[in-house]
Amino acid sequence: MSRRVRAVVMPGPRRPLEVREFPEPALEEGEALLHTLYSEICGTDVHLWHGRLEGVPYPIIPGHVSVGRLATLRGTIRDLDGDPFREGDVVAFLDVHGTCGACYACLVSRQTTRCPHRRVYGITYGAAQGLLGGWAEAIHLKAGVKILRLPEEVTPELYIGGGCGLVTAVHAVERAGVRIGDAVVVLGAGSVGQSAVALAAISGADPIVAIGAPDDRLRMALRMGATEVLSIDALPHAERLAAVRARTGGRGADVVIEAAGAPEAVVEGAELLRDGGVLVVAGQYTDNGPATWNVHALLNRKHLDVRGCWGSDFSHFHKAIRILARHGRRVPWRDLVTRLSPLEGAGEALQAVEARAPLKAAITPNDLR
Amino acid sequence: MSRRVRAVVMPGPRRPLEVREFPEPALEEGEALLHTLYSEICGTDVHLWHGRLEGVPYPIIPGHVSVGRLATLRGTIRDLDGDPFREGDVVAFLDVHGTCGACYACLVSRQTTRCPHRRVYGITYGAAQGLLGGWAEAIHLKAGVKILRLPEEVTPELYIGGGCGLVTAVHAVERAGVRIGDAVVVLGAGSVGQSAVALAAISGADPIVAIGAPDDRLRMALRMGATEVLSIDALPHAERLAAVRARTGGRGADVVIEAAGAPEAVVEGAELLRDGGVLVVAGQYTDNGPATWNVHALLNRKHLDVRGCWGSDFSHFHKAIRILARHGRRVPWRDLVTRLSPLEGAGEALQAVEARAPLKAAITPNDLR
Amino acid sequence: MSRRVRAVVMPGPRRPLEVREFPEPALEEGEALLHTLYSEICGTDVHLWHGRLEGVPYPIIPGHVSVGRLATLRGTIRDLDGDPFREGDVVAFLDVHGTCGACYACLVSRQTTRCPHRRVYGITYGAAQGLLGGWAEAIHLKAGVKILRLPEEVTPELYIGGGCGLVTAVHAVERAGVRIGDAVVVLGAGSVGQSAVALAAISGADPIVAIGAPDDRLRMALRMGATEVLSIDALPHAERLAAVRARTGGRGADVVIEAAGAPEAVVEGAELLRDGGVLVVAGQYTDNGPATWNVHALLNRKHLDVRGCWGSDFSHFHKAIRILARHGRRVPWRDLVTRLSPLEGAGEALQAVEARAPLKAAITPNDLR
Amino acid sequence: MSRRVRAVVMPGPRRPLEVREFPEPALEEGEALLHTLYSEICGTDVHLWHGRLEGVPYPIIPGHVSVGRLATLRGTIRDLDGDPFREGDVVAFLDVHGTCGACYACLVSRQTTRCPHRRVYGITYGAAQGLLGGWAEAIHLKAGVKILRLPEEVTPELYIGGGCGLVTAVHAVERAGVRIGDAVVVLGAGSVGQSAVALAAISGADPIVAIGAPDDRLRMALRMGATEVLSIDALPHAERLAAVRARTGGRGADVVIEAAGAPEAVVEGAELLRDGGVLVVAGQYTDNGPATWNVHALLNRKHLDVRGCWGSDFSHFHKAIRILARHGRRVPWRDLVTRLSPLEGAGEALQAVEARAPLKAAITPNDLR
Repeated sequence: MSRRVRAVVMPGPRRPLEVREFPEPALEEGEALLHTLYSEICGTDVHLWHGRLEGVPYPIIPGHVSVGRLATLRGTIRDLDGDPFREGDVVAFLDVHGTCGACYACLVSRQTTRCPHRRVYGITYGAAQGLLGGWAEAIHLKAGVKILRLPEEVTPELYIGGGCGLVTAVHAVERAGVRIGDAVVVLGAGSVGQSAVALAAISGADPIVAIGAPDDRLRMALRMGATEVLSIDALPHAERLAAVRARTGGRGADVVIEAAGAPEAVVEGAELLRDGGVLVVAGQYTDNGPATWNVHALLNRKHLDVRGCWGSDFSHFHKAIRILARHGRRVPWRDLVTRLSPLEGAGEALQAVEARAPLKAAITPNDLR
Repeated sequence: MSRRVRAVVMPGPRRPLEVREFPEPALEEGEALLHTLYSEICGTDVHLWHGRLEGVPYPIIPGHVSVGRLATLRGTIRDLDGDPFREGDVVAFLDVHGTCGACYACLVSRQTTRCPHRRVYGITYGAAQGLLGGWAEAIHLKAGVKILRLPEEVTPELYIGGGCGLVTAVHAVERAGVRIGDAVVVLGAGSVGQSAVALAAISGADPIVAIGAPDDRLRMALRMGATEVLSIDALPHAERLAAVRARTGGRGADVVIEAAGAPEAVVEGAELLRDGGVLVVAGQYTDNGPATWNVHALLNRKHLDVRGCWGSDFSHFHKAIRILARHGRRVPWRDLVTRLSPLEGAGEALQAVEARAPLKAAITPNDLR
Repeated sequence: MSRRVRAVVMPGPRRPLEVREFPEPALEEGEALLHTLYSEICGTDVHLWHGRLEGVPYPIIPGHVSVGRLATLRGTIRDLDGDPFREGDVVAFLDVHGTCGACYACLVSRQTTRCPHRRVYGITYGAAQGLLGGWAEAIHLKAGVKILRLPEEVTPELYIGGGCGLVTAVHAVERAGVRIGDAVVVLGAGSVGQSAVALAAISGADPIVAIGAPDDRLRMALRMGATEVLSIDALPHAERLAAVRARTGGRGADVVIEAAGAPEAVVEGAELLRDGGVLVVAGQYTDNGPATWNVHALLNRKHLDVRGCWGSDFSHFHKAIRILARHGRRVPWRDLVTRLSPLEGAGEALQAVEARAPLKAAITPNDLR
Repeated sequence: MSRRVRAVVMPGPRRPLEVREFPEPALEEGEALLHTLYSEICGTDVHLWHGRLEGVPYPIIPGHVSVGRLATLRGTIRDLDGDPFREGDVVAFLDVHGTCGACYACLVSRQTTRCPHRRVYGITYGAAQGLLGGWAEAIHLKAGVKILRLPEEVTPELYIGGGCGLVTAVHAVERAGVRIGDAVVVLGAGSVGQSAVALAAISGADPIVAIGAPDDRLRMALRMGATEVLSIDALPHAERLAAVRARTGGRGADVVIEAAGAPEAVVEGAELLRDGGVLVVAGQYTDNGPATWNVHALLNRKHLDVRGCWGSDFSHFHKAIRILARHGRRVPWRDLVTRLSPLEGAGEALQAVEARAPLKAAITPNDLR
C-alpha cells in the first residue's frame, strides 16, 4: 500500500491548517475505506479551532459529518437489514461510534449518548491515529462504525445540507415530543435551528416562530417552514416576548427548542413558554458561561419541563436519512450549504464560518465528477 | 343565626394576630359548616406574615390545611363514589378550589394547578368574605369545595401530621416518576422534604439521601425512611457531592427532589444527579431570588430532565389519604407536629415556626374532647 | 315565546323519522339558542336507528355534531380566553357535555371521556327534554356546553367536513403518539379513517397505508394523504400483510390505527405491526362481537402496546378546529361530505349512509343564504 | 486440559435426561469458566421437555439462570463500573446474550429483547457447542456474556430464589409503570407471579390481590406481600371479579399483571381493570392457544392499555440484584425454592416441577461446602 491520501490537519488551537499526506491504511476485518465526497465544516470545528473542547488530541484531521463512496471493504459489512455493502455504494456514516454496550449509560439508563467510551471522528482522534476525520480524500472506517446507504432520493449534496444540524435536531424534536398543533419557538437560526424549524413543520406544529439573526438566516428559516421570524438584532427582548404571546393566545409557546448557544437564550426560552411547557436545551454544546434565572417564577411556579439534549445516536441518524428522502425535494436543506472548498481552502472556509458568513460550508476533497 | 364563631385574623404583614368573632354563615345549597379540629401552621403562613405572596387580601383568616367534623350541611353533598356526607363525619378538605373547568389549563393542557381561577382557603380570601380560613372554630365550606371522609385508620392527628407537605410531596414524587430501585436525594428536611423521603421509601427507592438541617430534622428524616442523611451545616458542598456519588457507584442520583427553598438548592440538585437524571423543583414556592448555573455542563451535556412542580390537585389529596391509611401506622407522620396551640396562641406559634423551632405546628380551635 | 322550531325525530329503532314542531325553549342564565347551519349524519346515527346503543331514551332528535349561528344568548358566555360570545357568531359545539368534575374519572384517573355523567346531544337526551339534537332548525345550548367560535379560515362547510370523525381521529392519533417518520397503517376508510390518514400525514408519518373499501373511499384516502392504499375487497389478508411488510423493511408498521369497526380488524392490526409497535383501537364504538387472537404470538412475544381510545374531550375539539384552520385549504375535508339534505330528507339520507353510499352526509335545517 | 465436566443433557422432547461428561473448554480472550453453585429448574425447562419451544437444537444442556464461582478467567473481564472480575468471585450471569447492537430492535426501536440475534444459555445452544447450559458442574461464559458480582447481602441461595421469575417480573412491573397507591392484581402464583407481588408491594401498591392456585402458593403470595388472595379453584370467575371490585371502590384495578399462562387469563385481566387501566401480558411465554374477547367492551370502550412484555434485558437483571440486596432479608424469595437436586436427580426434579409440586427447584451440580 504505497498510495498516499491527502488530508487537512489542524495542528492545534488557532494554528494554521495544513494539508498533509498520509499512507492509505491497511484495513482489518470489518473495516472500509471511504472516498470522501463532502465533509461538513460545522460550528464545532470553529470551537475546535478556538480550543474550546476538552481533551482534543491535537493535531487532528477535522470533519465529523461526511458522505462518500465505499472504495475498499475488508470482509462483509452489513446494514441494518442484513444486506451487505458493496464497493461503489454511496454512504453516510455516523461520526460517533465505539458506544461500549457495557456501561451504565448503555445498559441501564439507556441514554447512550452519555456513554463515556464514545469516540468521534474528527474530534477525539489524533492525526497520529490515521485517517479518522472527514477533511481528507479518504476516511478509514473502523469496524463497528455505523454506515447507511443513501437512498436514491438523497443525493450527497442533500445529505450534507442536512448534516450534523439535522441529526441533532431530530434528537431535539424527539426529546421535545413535538406534536400536531403545538406552538413551537426555535431559538437560533444556525444549522441546528434551521433543521429544528423544518422538523417542527413536518410534525404539524403551528405556529413556528424562529428567533435569531442575521436577516438572511431568518429568511432561510421562513423557507424551512417557520410561520414567522423575529430578529434579535431588531427587536428587544420584551418585544420578542410580546410577539410570541400574541401568536399563542397570550399564553406562550407549548415548546421551545434552544439552538442558539448563548446561555441567556435558555432563560429566554423559559420566558417564552406557556405554563407547563417544554424547553429543550440543545444549543449549549460548549461552555459559554453561566445563566441566571428566577427559579421560583420560571421553573417552580411555571411548572415547566426543561430537558437537556446531548448529541445523537444511530436512531436519529437513521431517521434523518428517511426524512431527507421523504421531504428533501420540498424542504431546501441543500441550500443551507453556501460554500464549498477543496482541501487547500479549508483554512479560509473555516474563517468564513467563524465569521458566520456562510450558513453552512463543506469540504470537497475529491473531484466530484 | 346569632351564634358567633371565633377566628384568628392576620391584619396585615408583620402585624400582630388577633382573635375576632364572626357571625356563623348562612349556608347556601351544597355548602357546609365544619367544626375545626386541627388547622396547620405551615411555612406558607410565615410567608403570608412576611408579606411575601402577591395579591393577598389582608386582613385574612390563615389556615389552608384543616380537618374537622361536619356540623351542618345544606342539601346533599356527595363524595367521589356518590355517597352522601352526614353531620358528624370527620373530613379533610382540599384548600384549593374553584378550578374553573373552562380555561386552557383546565381543558387543553390539563395542568389544573395552573388554572388562574383557583382560590385557596386561608390565602386568597379576605376575612371580610367570611370564615374562609382554618384558624377558626368553624370553616365555611363553599359549594364545590372537595372534601374527603377520613377512613378509620386516619385519625385527625395523623392527617394533620401529613398535611400540606404530604399532598405537595405526592405531586412531587409523581412528577419525578420515582420507581423501585431509584437512587433518590431529597433536598430540604421541612415538611415537604420529610414526606418526600417517606414516599420515596414507600415507592421502593434505594438509597434515599436526605440533605438538610438542623440535626433533629435529619434524625426525623431517618425515621421517615431516609437511608442516610447529610447535614448542610456540617458538610460543605463538595463533601455532600462526594457522599452522594459514593452511594451511587460514582454516578450521582437518579432523582433529586428539591424541597429546600434556597435558590442554590436547585443548582446543587442538578449537580447531585447522574447524567440523564430527573430534578423536580418543588421548594421554590416563593421568590427567594435567582439561581446561577452553567447551562452547558449542568443541563445540555448532562442531558437532565428538570421539572417544575406547582401546587397539587384533588388526585394528590385523594392519594395522600389512602397512603396515610396504609402506611400511617409505620411512618411517623403524626410525630411531625410538635406544637399545638389554641386560637389565642396562634401568634406565638407562628413565631416559633418562623424560628424553625417546631418541625410542624397546628392550631386546635376547639376543645378536642 | 310562541315561535315554533322544526326538528327531525327518531321515534325508535327502525321506525320512520318524522319532522315535528317544538316550542322555542326559554333560556336560563348561561344558555343559548343556536340556529343550525349543518348537522352531521354519522355512522353512529345508523347505529341509533338500528337500536345498537344502550340506554337511548327514544324518541330522540339525532345530530351530535353541528355548527350554527348564535341566535340568542342569556347572560354572558365566554370562550377559553375569556372573550364573550355575541349573537351572530358562527360556532361549533362539543356534543359531549356534563362531565361532572367530581368523580374518579374526572378527578383522579383524569380520563374524562369515561366520566359516567357525560351527556351527549343527539344520543342520550330524549325529544321530551327539548331541542337537544342537531337535526333541528335550532339547538338549545345548555349552560356549560362548550362552544368554539370558528376562525375565519374555517367555514361551516369545512368544519362539518371534519366533523365527528376528525375530533375522534385527533384523540386516536394523540393516543398513538404518532411521530415524524413513523410508518402508519390506518384500517378503515370511513370518516374517522380519512381524518386519521390526514393527521398522520400532517404529523410527518411516512409511509401511510390506508386499508379499506370501496375504491372511491380509497381514492379519497390518497387525497387525504395516504402514500398507498390497499383494498380489502381486492386483496386477501395475506397479501395485505405482505404489502405492509414490503413497505416497512420487512418489519411491519410502527403504528396501526384501527377505525374499521369489524372485530377482526383489531387482530389484523396486531399482525400488521412490527415488534413493539402501537395499536390504537378506535373503531369498535359499538358491539360487533368478539375477536379471537393468539395472545402468545400477537401480544406477549411481539411486545405490543394496544390502546383503547374512547370518545373525545374538549382538547381534541379545540385542536381539531386549529388543524382545520391551518390545513383546511390543502386537505380536502370539505369534500368528504357528498350529500346534503333538508330536514324532510333526513330519513332518506340516513338510509343512504346506512348503505355507505355517501362517505359523509349532513342535514341543512335552515336556508343557508 | 484433560479435565472432564459432568452435565445433564436433555436429548430431545420427552426423552429421559442423562448425565454426560464434557471436556473442560479452552477459553478464548474475555471468556471465563464458572463453577456452578445453583441452576434453576424453571417452567421453561418443562416447556423444553415438552418440545413446546421452536428451534431448540436438541440435545441441549438445560439451565438458563445460574449462579456460581469464577474458576478461570482469560484476559480481563470488567463489570459495569470498570472493576475487573477475579477468580473466586461469586457471580450471576444473564442467560440472554449476543444482542447484536446492529439491528432495528437494538438501534432504532431500542427494544432489545426483540433482537433476533439473541442467544440464550440452556435454550438456543446445543450440547454439541459445549457447556452452554447451567445444569452442569461448570459453565462456559463466552466473551460478552454479562455477569454481575453478587453483593454481600445476596447469597447464592437468595439469588436463585429470585431467579428467572424475579428478572421477568422486574420488566413486567416496569412496563406496567406501577406507582405508589396503585391497586394491583397479579394473575398467577408461580415464580413470576410471586415476584410481581413482591415488587408491587415494594413499589407501594395497595391493595395487591393475587389470584391463582393451589392454596400453598396463595399462602406464599401473602408472605410475598399480597394484601389478599383469591383461589381460582374455589371462586368462580364472577366472584373473583366481584371481590376485586369490592376492594377498589367498585371500579376495578389500576394495573393487572398477567403471569398465569392460560390464554383466558388475558381476558380476565381486562375484565378486572378499571376504565383506563393497564394490563401487562407477561405469562404467555409459550403458545397455549387463542383467547377470545369483546374488543368493544373490553378494549375500546374501556380505554385500556394492554402491554405485551417479552423477556428481559441487562437493566432488569441489574435492578433485580439491587432489589434482592435491599429487600431480600424481609421478602422470602429464598423460600420459593423448595427442592434441590444433584445432577443425577435432574430428571426426577423436572417431573416434580411439571407436576407443580415444588414452587421452584434448583440443581446443585457441585458440593456446596
